Amino acid sequence: MLSSSDNELLTKVGPGTPMGSMMREYWMPAMVSTELPAPDCDPVRVLLLGERFIAFRDSSGKVGMLAAQCPHRGASLFFGRNEEGGLRCVYHGWKFDVSGRCLDMPNEPIESNFKDKVRARSVPVVERGGLVWAYLGSQEEPPPLPALEFFDEELSETRSINVFQINCNWLQALEGDIDTSHFGFLHVGHLGNDAAPEGTFLRHMLEDRAPRYKVVDTEFGSSYGAYRPAGSDEETYWRIAHYLFPFYTMIPTGLLGSSKTVTARVPLDDEHTMVYLATADEVPSDLAIGAETYENLRLLPNTTDWHGRFRSARTLDNDFEIDREAQRSGRSFTGLDSVPLEDRAMTESMGPVLDRGGEHLGSSDVMVIRVRRRILRALRTFVDSGELPPGANEPDLYRQRSGGVVLPTGADWLAATQGLRDGTEEPTTDPALAAGV
Amino acid sequence: MLSSSDNELLTKVGPGTPMGSMMREYWMPAMVSTELPAPDCDPVRVLLLGERFIAFRDSSGKVGMLAAQCPHRGASLFFGRNEEGGLRCVYHGWKFDVSGRCLDMPNEPIESNFKDKVRARSVPVVERGGLVWAYLGSQEEPPPLPALEFFDEELSETRSINVFQINCNWLQALEGDIDTSHFGFLHVGHLGNDAAPEGTFLRHMLEDRAPRYKVVDTEFGSSYGAYRPAGSDEETYWRIAHYLFPFYTMIPTGLLGSSKTVTARVPLDDEHTMVYLATADEVPSDLAIGAETYENLRLLPNTTDWHGRFRSARTLDNDFEIDREAQRSGRSFTGLDSVPLEDRAMTESMGPVLDRGGEHLGSSDVMVIRVRRRILRALRTFVDSGELPPGANEPDLYRQRSGGVVLPTGADWLAATQGLRDGTEEPTTDPALAAGV
Amino acid sequence: MLSSSDNELLTKVGPGTPMGSMMREYWMPAMVSTELPAPDCDPVRVLLLGERFIAFRDSSGKVGMLAAQCPHRGASLFFGRNEEGGLRCVYHGWKFDVSGRCLDMPNEPIESNFKDKVRARSVPVVERGGLVWAYLGSQEEPPPLPALEFFDEELSETRSINVFQINCNWLQALEGDIDTSHFGFLHVGHLGNDAAPEGTFLRHMLEDRAPRYKVVDTEFGSSYGAYRPAGSDEETYWRIAHYLFPFYTMIPTGLLGSSKTVTARVPLDDEHTMVYLATADEVPSDLAIGAETYENLRLLPNTTDWHGRFRSARTLDNDFEIDREAQRSGRSFTGLDSVPLEDRAMTESMGPVLDRGGEHLGSSDVMVIRVRRRILRALRTFVDSGELPPGANEPDLYRQRSGGVVLPTGADWLAATQGLRDGTEEPTTDPALAAGV
Repeated sequence: MLSSSDNELLTKVGPGTPMGSMMREYWMPAMVSTELPAPDCDPVRVLLLGERFIAFRDSSGKVGMLAAQCPHRGASLFFGRNEEGGLRCVYHGWKFDVSGRCLDMPNEPIESNFKDKVRARSVPVVERGGLVWAYLGSQEEPPPLPALEFFDEELSETRSINVFQINCNWLQALEGDIDTSHFGFLHVGHLGNDAAPEGTFLRHMLEDRAPRYKVVDTEFGSSYGAYRPAGSDEETYWRIAHYLFPFYTMIPTGLLGSSKTVTARVPLDDEHTMVYLATADEVPSDLAIGAETYENLRLLPNTTDWHGRFRSARTLDNDFEIDREAQRSGRSFTGLDSVPLEDRAMTESMGPVLDRGGEHLGSSDVMVIRVRRRILRALRTFVDSGELPPGANEPDLYRQRSGGVVLPTGADWLAATQGLRDGTEEPTTDPALAAGV
Repeated sequence: MLSSSDNELLTKVGPGTPMGSMMREYWMPAMVSTELPAPDCDPVRVLLLGERFIAFRDSSGKVGMLAAQCPHRGASLFFGRNEEGGLRCVYHGWKFDVSGRCLDMPNEPIESNFKDKVRARSVPVVERGGLVWAYLGSQEEPPPLPALEFFDEELSETRSINVFQINCNWLQALEGDIDTSHFGFLHVGHLGNDAAPEGTFLRHMLEDRAPRYKVVDTEFGSSYGAYRPAGSDEETYWRIAHYLFPFYTMIPTGLLGSSKTVTARVPLDDEHTMVYLATADEVPSDLAIGAETYENLRLLPNTTDWHGRFRSARTLDNDFEIDREAQRSGRSFTGLDSVPLEDRAMTESMGPVLDRGGEHLGSSDVMVIRVRRRILRALRTFVDSGELPPGANEPDLYRQRSGGVVLPTGADWLAATQGLRDGTEEPTTDPALAAGV
Repeated sequence: MLSSSDNELLTKVGPGTPMGSMMREYWMPAMVSTELPAPDCDPVRVLLLGERFIAFRDSSGKVGMLAAQCPHRGASLFFGRNEEGGLRCVYHGWKFDVSGRCLDMPNEPIESNFKDKVRARSVPVVERGGLVWAYLGSQEEPPPLPALEFFDEELSETRSINVFQINCNWLQALEGDIDTSHFGFLHVGHLGNDAAPEGTFLRHMLEDRAPRYKVVDTEFGSSYGAYRPAGSDEETYWRIAHYLFPFYTMIPTGLLGSSKTVTARVPLDDEHTMVYLATADEVPSDLAIGAETYENLRLLPNTTDWHGRFRSARTLDNDFEIDREAQRSGRSFTGLDSVPLEDRAMTESMGPVLDRGGEHLGSSDVMVIRVRRRILRALRTFVDSGELPPGANEPDLYRQRSGGVVLPTGADWLAATQGLRDGTEEPTTDPALAAGV
């Protein structure tokens, strides 16, 4: 249960809100690079934390994001001409480059010099790992990008990224990522306890669907280890995962030390979130986050409107096309035929912004509770001190790995997994045991 | 004319409002039983006084209505599995029975005992007369159902019930029921004064469309008698009808003493109302509320959304498919081809919640005025004293009958009709005279 | 840049707002006469300054506009019968004439005399020049109609009027009319400087797209002269245009002294505006406001809803069907294929009501600035003194003309054009030079 004021603090991200201001101090994925396929291509409407931008790729291939309204009299730059190194508003011909500088102001007498006094609001933009990143923060010189392993060049072969928009607040979407106990129900509730081979991670999960938890705060956010017996009293199966400021998670699917996975829950506005779900792992994983599960989201072709990007045809309005017969027969626990669809059904069915006043949190929710507190504490420090929030200027904090591991029962989960979590140690577990979870 | 604050008092019914709180002290029709056709069938979204419920029929056939959001972390129970005596949330597998008790909490360690500490909000439900009734009130032990004659078993052959949703506040819908003078215009304005046989009730109405009124407060609400000559100075035709707390009416159609009719105007929220229109009468009545007139509402198949039940294809958005040519030619007074459609056109065209500040009430509106005052007075008593409002715990008050009767001019309408109104006396009027009104 | 409070003052026009009250003191175009094609035809829903009216043409051909809600109990008069000299509400048969007088109240006993105590709210209406004009002001006796030359009988042959609804506030639409420098970009940005024959007005504009401005306040509002060289240093091409209280403009297209053009930007509500664009000119003008450019708005057939009149199929939602390929290739500057479509794209893309806090106004915006100040000053006087605002009772102030003219460089623009502007002098410029602009 969260007080209504704390809930508001955590969920509202528009300009001027505390959470919005703190989030703006971080680089954020804003688009997929292919949304701007070529120099001088059509501009694109982009919503980010409740702000409206027009994104364009200039003649040299550089991406710019300008505030949507022309600084002159407010016409939308969306209708602008993307030409010769800048975007030209068609109302009076004012032309801006990616940095917001006015290159031309042809309806004003030259002697007025007005051109040099006007700038379009623009935000720093870089492209990395197939994404367009934007910085909306207060630092004169933007910090470095977070050094997420996913973006390392050598990962390119096993790398995949799935992007989709969801119709609810960023926080309730993120809370699903750090709540591992739902896996045993929402995603595999239809499987019997012996549905997976002995010794596999999945088998451990099916045999004990009420794991215990350890949680800890870290420099980058918070981590948890959810544990249960690994087939015997001597061994324990640990699922280790992270929350990283401000909106990232690394989920415990796959093999700890091998999987480089990260999810970003980027708010478009308070009620819409763009999910960037990136994976890189040499160990195949076909159950939870395989590519085919994303096909079942049935993404619609992008349209030009503010909420028109990476939308699913399956929404709360059509009950996510639930198949009640499949649910009733037990072929599926949910009647929904993919993991991300199941996650969306739960989080979007909470309403656009969940009022957390009616919650009853149990021992399986310790990580959810921990993360809320971690963010609230950082938020208060940020508001009081004005100092940069955790990780905003510490890119290397983001070199974390998550996943599953079997440890001797009684081992210190953090000490024993240090190298697997920071990528300095190779996993020794047979990858086949982790496949399919 | 009603002050804006009184209007708000009467029309707002959400949780915590005075009218909403008072209304909750009564049993309310919430659904038609056939909406839950069999044990373990699909759950249904139900809106009631602005609250969201998921209704389901359990394995034993019992109906439950649970607050829509799971008490755990707020996922909608609509996506739940209806299985083995309870509804199981698919997020973490928590399972609740119709009383809200948590039967299973499989993602929590057994020793946590958390299962016994959590309840889903549920409301008492009973089925009677083909309807599902819900009680949202404050009494530990719900009161008995109102003893409406309509629900007596022996009425089954002549019993019919029509249910449809309208897009406006409950009060303006109800006010149409207690405003008998509109009958002569809205419903039969196209008929000449001699369009009905001499001596019939309809003929009396056509010959004098400006009846006089007597109104009186009663224990159950208020009653009126609208009167006019019955073909001569010696006899007077009376239309006697009732308002019963909190949202019932008994309209004056048919023969007093024979007709058992009742209408409930149940708020889904402030701007949508479910109408339950129940009739039982051995005297055929083909004009005002015959079954075919409901066919003209052209109800759409129910959908699963909050406002998707018993919706008409004819709405204010399509002008209720008015036929202007029929109206112009005089074939119809309104161009609308059924009584309930005419009533809806008037009440919905007032807007979602009528601002009553611009009204001009005449002598034909005495019952409307009386009922508002009756409710406001009860509301003030309820708020001040906390005592149960009129009739909430007095089921037998609801054994009333309404309808038309011819009395000697000058007779005391109340004394003369006591037995006909309370069902202890059989009508002596020839039923043929009342047919068709 | 405008403060948020001044912006609100200028843009809000609902009942009781300062700007709404001031605007109501003027006659306003409310409909096109052909919307009510014949006596006793179907009534029409009309929105004006946020107020809802039902317009009808009575048996004698007279037009009435009554407040939409029946004064009795608020049913909409839209469903009324238009019959024998009045509109009859079908609820209880109350019948009103065009003046709001109750002609019949058949559900009330005659002796109640209530009929004479009730009036429907009606507003004075006249028809002139193919339009229905309404007066919503405070004067007992409405003032005369503004004596716009457009409505003179003798203009009938060259007269045309185009009406369309736009989805934004009236003021941002009007500001586009008094901002002549956008012409060189938005409308002719694809033309080279030598695209028009030497000596033509268009050639002067293409050769110098950054005109200088003179602005002046007048009794009727404000006027500007935008000037630039007319092919040599000796001659100057002036574009002279006007703002007239409360929502009229006369744009500088065509030949000063010949063109009788006027545009009214009539608010339906704060976010929707009906544009009446009237022209009368013997000099053909095929570029800017020719009839074919209106065809490209693709107006939809009128529907009966409040916003259903004169709507375009091309809206912000479909990006006005911009042709990016045409824009990219330079065949068109905007990719939009007509002048009014280009204007709409700019003004509607500012949002429903532009927040003017982010503007950067240059020397080309002096007329925009001047007009805002002129209105704000009048508004303050009106609020403080209660006196009629400028022109409200001075019809002859509206006999103005606008257009282009070539004057000797250095001439006093106002003195030199007095007769051309007030219609007492014939233009001497070759009309061919003005054609097409």
